[in-house]
Parts: sequence; structure tokens; C-alpha cells
Amino acid sequence: MIKTIVGTADFIESLRGKKATFMLALSNTKTANIEGITQAGIPGMIHLTPTLDSEFLCTGEVRSLDNIAETPKGVPTPALITRGVHLLSPYSRIELLDLGLEVKPKVDYFKLYNFDIEPSDNIAKGANIDAQTLFQKGVEFGQSYKCQDDYIILGESVPSGTTTAMATAIGLRYKAKEAFSSSFKNVPNDIRKNTLKLALSHLNHKDDIFAILGKLGDNMLIFNAGFILGLNNQIPLVLAGGTQMASVLLIVNKILRLMGGTMETSNLALCTTKWVAEDENSDIKALIELLQFPINAYYSDFDFSLTNHPALKLYDEGEAKEGVGAGGALMYANLNGISKENITKQVEAFLQ
Amino acid sequence: MIKTIVGTADFIESLRGKKATFMLALSNTKTANIEGITQAGIPGMIHLTPTLDSEFLCTGEVRSLDNIAETPKGVPTPALITRGVHLLSPYSRIELLDLGLEVKPKVDYFKLYNFDIEPSDNIAKGANIDAQTLFQKGVEFGQSYKCQDDYIILGESVPSGTTTAMATAIGLRYKAKEAFSSSFKNVPNDIRKNTLKLALSHLNHKDDIFAILGKLGDNMLIFNAGFILGLNNQIPLVLAGGTQMASVLLIVNKILRLMGGTMETSNLALCTTKWVAEDENSDIKALIELLQFPINAYYSDFDFSLTNHPALKLYDEGEAKEGVGAGGALMYANLNGISKENITKQVEAFLQ
Repeated sequence: MIKTIVGTADFIESLRGKKATFMLALSNTKTANIEGITQAGIPGMIHLTPTLDSEFLCTGEVRSLDNIAETPKGVPTPALITRGVHLLSPYSRIELLDLGLEVKPKVDYFKLYNFDIEPSDNIAKGANIDAQTLFQKGVEFGQSYKCQDDYIILGESVPSGTTTAMATAIGLRYKAKEAFSSSFKNVPNDIRKNTLKLALSHLNHKDDIFAILGKLGDNMLIFNAGFILGLNNQIPLVLAGGTQMASVLLIVNKILRLMGGTMETSNLALCTTKWVAEDENSDIKALIELLQFPINAYYSDFDFSLTNHPALKLYDEGEAKEGVGAGGALMYANLNGISKENITKQVEAFLQ
Repeated sequence: MIKTIVGTADFIESLRGKKATFMLALSNTKTANIEGITQAGIPGMIHLTPTLDSEFLCTGEVRSLDNIAETPKGVPTPALITRGVHLLSPYSRIELLDLGLEVKPKVDYFKLYNFDIEPSDNIAKGANIDAQTLFQKGVEFGQSYKCQDDYIILGESVPSGTTTAMATAIGLRYKAKEAFSSSFKNVPNDIRKNTLKLALSHLNHKDDIFAILGKLGDNMLIFNAGFILGLNNQIPLVLAGGTQMASVLLIVNKILRLMGGTMETSNLALCTTKWVAEDENSDIKALIELLQFPINAYYSDFDFSLTNHPALKLYDEGEAKEGVGAGGALMYANLNGISKENITKQVEAFLQ
């Protein structure tokens, strides 16, 4: 089932049976190199996570490393969910956005958009992003994008992206500190607090919005804020993610206010997982309610209650929550009649 | 699952969720009248097999005979698989190519292309095909063909087509004798050897490529070689077949060499069944590796291990292997999330 966090069921129900382009935004921030800040990947190889996620989503194979990214505790990447849904009820197409990758995914035949974007730096030292140029690239992409399907599901794979998302929201002066999740169950608050403190220390009161984003953000956040404004409500867009996608919306909100502009958002929604929606360490609803435009937000109530696989059980225990558009993928499965049983079996099959 | 014989998974994975036209090339060669050379049909009625296959694929009914073609041992036609997949996850459209049929299929509403082609003669006496004209018809069809879907699956139904395919490849001087399968488990080597010997005896050293094809080939092989060249990589094309489709590619390869030409083949692939890919009496991989252009080749790992039906079990025992695009159909099923269980049940239902 798809449950409503904010708004009504109508938007998402209107997409039932419609065709979707699955778009995956990929980026590296050197913030992920801070020891212990993320478990989204293999220690020392964290930067490969978006590369491996996208290879696996497209081809069912990981090519840039022997094994697919697992967290140290053995939680498998949510790419297994996103790929599993694709096998059961395929997205009409998968498109990859290279928003600054250390290593390009090794896939042919799939659209891989290149925007000449470099991985961003560690926010503890200043992310060092030319945010205005990057934002403009997103706007232009949105303005020129021709969707070949009925709607877009936009996911992301950005290791340590919840940290940059939190820093960005706080840097933009939202009261959002308590509302952010991370990929850790026991959120590493000391490491994050310290990172956040260092990151915020680079701000000064003259910083405009792009200066703030350039110090605290990551490429995915900034580019996608531009992409949303560029699309301008012309194509139904489901942001498939949790607090990171909420932070994208917070950037959009801030830019609209700055410009004194408004934008129709009737075709814009967010959809995340149950693990995010019910997370006790974050509050996706509170983040969305900070927005000054109306938006629908949903979550899929899928969980791993039907499996006995210990690695998957860790999701239900809060060890992993979202990523690679898993929430949007699970929504898509529901919109296309795929059962919880079948998804569970398919994901289990990857681990055999 | 779809497994890779040659190349990488990317081409076929990029078709996941895409829409397909299923095209079935139908032809008779009097070679099939040689007693014992094929079991693709009812003795004395072998020439009806492509007609019945196409009627059943399109309508679920056989109209030109009381019962659907079975081999003497009772192996049902692979059209059951191709039709079964269509019931579970329909091809966007089915189109029939009449490349020289004794009896036209009795179907309305389905596109049946007519090219004014007569059934070809027995290769033991010389197939007597105007190969250049036939080839040119294929080229023109490919050049003018407007695909209404994302890609084409091209299957065939040509009784005794493995024999003509083998003769053609050998006649074109490929070292391919051991690499060809037939629809028999215990390949009737004496009958085939004798047929082959007689067929090759008609060649003389002055024969150009079209003269050779005209003596040894069948209409499907020659027309489709032209079709591929006419399409010229503009539309993704999956050749759904085993050694016969490999022989089509060998003709394409020879013609390209003759012309000193090259062709992009990134949108061209072959997909066959597990029964062909794992056949001990033929070597599809070796045939494909004779090509001087790159190509992706795959097989579906579907088998009848989930059934107890004795007639279907004969497939797993090697009594039947491919035909009516079964390999491509099984690939299409996988690309659209149809499980092995469901295909098995659907095919079983036809036999009840």
C-alpha cells in the first residue's frame, strides 16, 4: 500500500498503470570519506557505491568491484529493492545522471547524462561547489528534458548525503536539526555534529544562497533543485527519497522565496520508504511541512516482515532506510500490481 | 533469467520494459519432404507447420488442420511457448511474413506481409531460389519498415530449416559442419549427411554468393539477411532463434565482406533457448564467433523442470529445442516480469 504523509492520495493514484522513466542521480561528496559518517558502502570503497548501485540497477551486475556494496554490518544496498521491482514490473527506461562521480558506471545502451560536474569536497572543509553554475545546469536540463513516459521517478545514490542534506537545510536557516535521518540506526551523532559544526563554521553573514549551498551542499541537492524549477511542473515528478529529497525541496522553497516567485507544484511529489516514514531519529513530515508550497508526500508500507533473511531483517530493524529510489520503486511496484510477497522473493533471490 | 552467450547484458537489459513487435517469418522448403529429416510437424503434413504455428500464435486456434503440429513422438510445437508468453505479457503486435508458404494462414486483422515468394525446392535437388531478387526484397522491406514499437523480435517457422541453414553455412565455406543442431534429439545424421552431400554436389566453383544461396538456402535465411542489412541498425532487432538465425547472420557477414562494407550491429542481437544453448549436438556460440562483426547473443534459462507433463518433459530431454521465436519469447517474458512458474502453467493449460 501507498500511504499519505502529506496531501491526498489522488496524485499518486492518478499514476496507477502509467509508464515511468526511472532517473537516478549519482554523486560523490568527499564528506563520505569522514570515518564512520556513513555505512552506505564498503569502508575504503564508499565512493564506489553510486557507481555500483547504478550498474546493478541497469544490468543486474556490479562491474566496478567484485561485490555489490554492503554496509559493514552486512545490510545490502537498497538497489536490490529498486532492481527487484524492475525485474517484476519494469520501468519503461532507466536514465543515469552523472552529477560528479569518482568512477563512471560501466554500462552501455543506457542513457548516462554527463554535465561535466566534479565530485564535491568534504563539507567539514567546505564543499567548494560552484553552486550557481550547477544549479543553472539543473534548470537547463529540466527545461530541455523531453519525457518519453508519463512520469519521472527520481532517485539518488549519494553516500553521506543525509549529512550534506542536513547541513544544507540548517545552513539555509530552516529549523530542521532534529528532523534528519542517516543510513545508521544509531545515528553517529558525535561524528555528524562535529562535521556539521565544522561545516557551518565556514559560513559568514554575507553569504548569499548559492554561497551557502556551495559550502554545505552536495551536487545532487543543488542540481535537482534546479531540475525541479526547470521542469516547472510540466511533467509529473516523484522524488524517490527521504530526507535528502526533502532537502532538495527546501532549496527549491528558499530560491522561490528569494526570487519572490511561485511555481505550480501539483505535479510534484515525494515518496519514501516505511523505514524513513516511521524512523524515530528523523521526521520527514516535519521537513515537508516547512515548505511554503503545497506538495503531496507518500510512503510505501513495504517491509521485510515476510522474509527470514537476516541481512534483509536489518532493514526492519532500522539499519538501512532508503536510497537508490527504493521508496519510489516500491510505490511503482504497488501502482503496477506487484505483491509484497513477490518483491520479497525477488530481493531474496539476489542474496542466494 | 537471461544469460549471455557472447557480449554483455547491457543491450538486452536496455529493452526491459520496452514494447516489442513480434515478427514471424514463415516459409516452406521442399527439403522438409525428405522422409525423416525433420520432426517439426505431422508426417505428410509437415508443410502445414508454419501455417499452423502462425494461426495458433495469433488466434490461439489452428485452422488449417484439426490439431496443432506435433512431432511423431508427441513433442508439441514451441509455438505453445510463444503463444503462452503472449497471453501472459502480450507483444504489442504480431506481424507475419509470408516468405513462401504452401498454405496461407487463415487469420484476419493481423498484418500478413506478402512478397510474392514461392516455397523453395529441396536442396538435395537444388533449392532453385532466385536469391538475389529475394535478398533485395528483404533489403527493401528493411529500408521501408516503420517500427511502431521500441524493438522487433524476429522468429521463424521453417520445417527442416536447420538442414538448409547448415548447408548454407557450409556452402559459404564456413567451418560449421559440427555446429548445427536439428529438431531431432538423435540428429538423423545419415539422412542429413546424404542431403547435404547431394546439395553441395550442385555447387561449382564459378558460383557467386547468390548462386550458392539459391542452391542451398531457404527463403527465410536469404530474405532475413537482406532485412537485417536494410534495417541497418536503425531499430533494435532480436533474432529469436538458434542455428538458423546464426546462419542468417553468417550470410550477412559474407555479404558485408563481399561488398567490403561494414554495418553497425549495436542494435542487433540473437536470443535462443536453453535447449539450443546447452545442446550437445550443436554449438551456437561457435557459429556466432565466426562472425566478423560484434554482436550480443543470449539465451533464456527457462526449462520445463517445473512441469510433470510428459510431452513438455521431452523438451528438457532434447527432443525439441527452438522455433517460432521461442527463445525470444522467453526473453520477452523475463523482460516483462513473467515467472517461470506462470509460463509453465500457461503452456500446460494448452495441453489439457
